[in-house]
Amino acid sequence: MSSMFDAIVTHIRKHVSLTEDEAGLLTSLLELREVKKKEHLLKEGEICNDNYFVVSGCFRLYIINPKGVEQVIQFGIENWWITEYVSFKSGRPSGFCIQAVENAVITVLARNVQEELFEKIPQLERYFRIVAEKAYAAQLMRINYIFNLSGEEQYRLFNRNFPEFVQRVPQYMLASYLGITPEFLSKLRAKKE
Amino acid sequence: MSSMFDAIVTHIRKHVSLTEDEAGLLTSLLELREVKKKEHLLKEGEICNDNYFVVSGCFRLYIINPKGVEQVIQFGIENWWITEYVSFKSGRPSGFCIQAVENAVITVLARNVQEELFEKIPQLERYFRIVAEKAYAAQLMRINYIFNLSGEEQYRLFNRNFPEFVQRVPQYMLASYLGITPEFLSKLRAKKE
Repeated sequence: MSSMFDAIVTHIRKHVSLTEDEAGLLTSLLELREVKKKEHLLKEGEICNDNYFVVSGCFRLYIINPKGVEQVIQFGIENWWITEYVSFKSGRPSGFCIQAVENAVITVLARNVQEELFEKIPQLERYFRIVAEKAYAAQLMRINYIFNLSGEEQYRLFNRNFPEFVQRVPQYMLASYLGITPEFLSKLRAKKE
Repeated sequence: MSSMFDAIVTHIRKHVSLTEDEAGLLTSLLELREVKKKEHLLKEGEICNDNYFVVSGCFRLYIINPKGVEQVIQFGIENWWITEYVSFKSGRPSGFCIQAVENAVITVLARNVQEELFEKIPQLERYFRIVAEKAYAAQLMRINYIFNLSGEEQYRLFNRNFPEFVQRVPQYMLASYLGITPEFLSKLRAKKE
């Protein structure tokens, strides 16, 4: 088995068991892709046909809002899956964009390949169930934070949970994600340091 | 097979196939429960051990925020699952509450029963994967709306998507869910009618 796919196989095996044969079948159907910083995996109006596992680097899922401003909905870093599920599930054009924030390496799992794998490796249903449930729980917590924490509190919490991450993304993207202005984020960071 | 569980079996069969034997096994392990309006399925500090399928009625998942105000995070109506996943997955006490907004009937799926069913009916992994992916996608759309739509736009959209629902829940709960004041919601409703 190629070591290129070690990250994804290791992540799957944290959640379910996978025989060597199954791991071999899986990795034979995956595609590894290098993505340059600022490159888009998905643009508004395109159909999202792939689910992406981030091996290295960072992505953002964003939407261009009615005022023409880019609103960051989600980040995806190492060992996270990122896709645009509404389009991925429906096959309809997406209203969102997915873009590399850093040079990155991803594992690409096409929709039809995923369906094929579910038939051949039932354990993957379990794995993706667990991944989706975690992602869902994380979004509910995020909605809780948006409603109930101030911008400063959200930043402090985010910084505590992902200390390295705050250094990796441009301030304006992090500010967008947190729903605060870049100027306010800059003040918060200055206060801390 | 008891008809009490028709709703859940029908919902599962919309997504995966289930033999009569499997449906029989499933329903033999479920519990049907009547819940009175205002009754809690989960209170802050309790462990959420169950996943609830709403047969009839309506529930809200809410949190008591630092100011002591109840913030509605999510509603659950007929044919939706509602649980508090963070606690359900971790077995740790929950920071959230789940309460009946109306008299309701639910199907209770205990965590250990769910695990047992996954072993015996692998198709249920697929079903719950699909349910979790849909729930996740819905939360991403919600975050998008929170950031990018005004309170009025969110209300109009919600009213268009769930026209009957707006009549069913108390105004203050709907206002909380939409992140607006009850007074403002009242004005919006008056404008419409």
